[in-house]
Amino acid sequence: MKPLILITNDDGFAARGLRALDEIAMEFGDVVVMAPEQNSSGKSHSITTGRPLRVREIKQDDGLAVYACDGTPVDCVKLASEYFCPRKPDLVLSGINHGSNSSINVLYSGTMGAVIEATALGFNAIGFSLLNHNPEADFEPSRHIVRHLIAQVLTHGLPPDISLNVNIPRLEQHQIKGIRICHEAKAQWNDSFEKRIDPQGRPYWWLTGKFVCNDPPETSDEWALANGYVSVVPIHPDFTHYPAIAQLQHLEVL
Amino acid sequence: MKPLILITNDDGFAARGLRALDEIAMEFGDVVVMAPEQNSSGKSHSITTGRPLRVREIKQDDGLAVYACDGTPVDCVKLASEYFCPRKPDLVLSGINHGSNSSINVLYSGTMGAVIEATALGFNAIGFSLLNHNPEADFEPSRHIVRHLIAQVLTHGLPPDISLNVNIPRLEQHQIKGIRICHEAKAQWNDSFEKRIDPQGRPYWWLTGKFVCNDPPETSDEWALANGYVSVVPIHPDFTHYPAIAQLQHLEVL
Repeated sequence: MKPLILITNDDGFAARGLRALDEIAMEFGDVVVMAPEQNSSGKSHSITTGRPLRVREIKQDDGLAVYACDGTPVDCVKLASEYFCPRKPDLVLSGINHGSNSSINVLYSGTMGAVIEATALGFNAIGFSLLNHNPEADFEPSRHIVRHLIAQVLTHGLPPDISLNVNIPRLEQHQIKGIRICHEAKAQWNDSFEKRIDPQGRPYWWLTGKFVCNDPPETSDEWALANGYVSVVPIHPDFTHYPAIAQLQHLEVL
Repeated sequence: MKPLILITNDDGFAARGLRALDEIAMEFGDVVVMAPEQNSSGKSHSITTGRPLRVREIKQDDGLAVYACDGTPVDCVKLASEYFCPRKPDLVLSGINHGSNSSINVLYSGTMGAVIEATALGFNAIGFSLLNHNPEADFEPSRHIVRHLIAQVLTHGLPPDISLNVNIPRLEQHQIKGIRICHEAKAQWNDSFEKRIDPQGRPYWWLTGKFVCNDPPETSDEWALANGYVSVVPIHPDFTHYPAIAQLQHLEVL
């Protein structure tokens, strides 16, 4: 039986990056797409519990079913894998995101929320992001990278509880130097809210921010991307900082 | 100068657990509360970028300012620390959540999203959760635990980039055996969506699920909580699985 690949994203079901990804995935197997109706960037790992979910069938072709869901990317993974896939998916893909999900951005990313959820549910999963926010971004130079990583993971699998956060620099194919397995660079968003006054005289605040990553080490994703490499970060759905457990024993003394 | 403590939660500014937490925090310093207008459970680390934020002043007393914001818990931490705190907070607290945020629940939790955001912004931070979903939950037995941990962190700080995920069992104070520093137990939500048909004949799906954690080790939070202990898990905002970097070198060969 052909592999079954489930695809989602956070830019919404109509995004070009999603279409690029489902075209590549169809070379490998049957594809089910369930993606948010609307842009869900910044939705992180959020789930919808206060209201039910609606689903709209967009396309039902041979080997490709596409659904739009009014929930979050994580909702899409949960609902599609449970209810809309004809069998359990062999691989869950998310993206190709329009914009970076490197470093600390993985925390906010709906694209990567979906990937982490897929891992928590026991599926192999990869998130792809291109460092280009433009809705008209060109995904052609990303295709051979995406194809390579899908083939590798379908063939060899991934270590237990591990998924991949793949970021692709905004370069022509011949300019991409290769792939580097990295860790997340330590970085920060320096937020500054822009206060404005509405026509009724009441204030409101827009979130703005500047991504700051000083001197990232050569082993990090930010270094790789700044130097023409695709970054692949193995991630896992456990926030525990294990070395700190021994450092914090004094807290046990009440 | 007194310590400044910033407080948020995901149950909304009117929740009893938040009030219990701000009362305890006021014993230690000046308090600024900014919490979501509405229940934001399951909002994880999501941020609001597609629209601006509104803020409503609820109370402005000596040593206590309370604001409601129409954003997420993470928005609250960003906006309050940048714009509504008279100085940088010495400590950020989130909770006390009505319900558990142990194990894998930290991924979905708005309470813990706020804590991780505070850590990423460079603040010491603690998230508190009581294993009782009831809006009328009794937070009295939690007070001495909360007080103890706030005092410890204000006095000794935390290791760099580390925050605390504190879960408190639903027990009387004399039944609580103590505090254990733990790691997250490996667990899973077995989701099953309940499909219903609306009066117009169209389907919708409710997310339901069963938390499954088989035989958690004695070093884990689930074991601690099941055995009468408060669990304290040191967490950090980096999803990288470092040992897997060496295991995945074969992916670099294009």
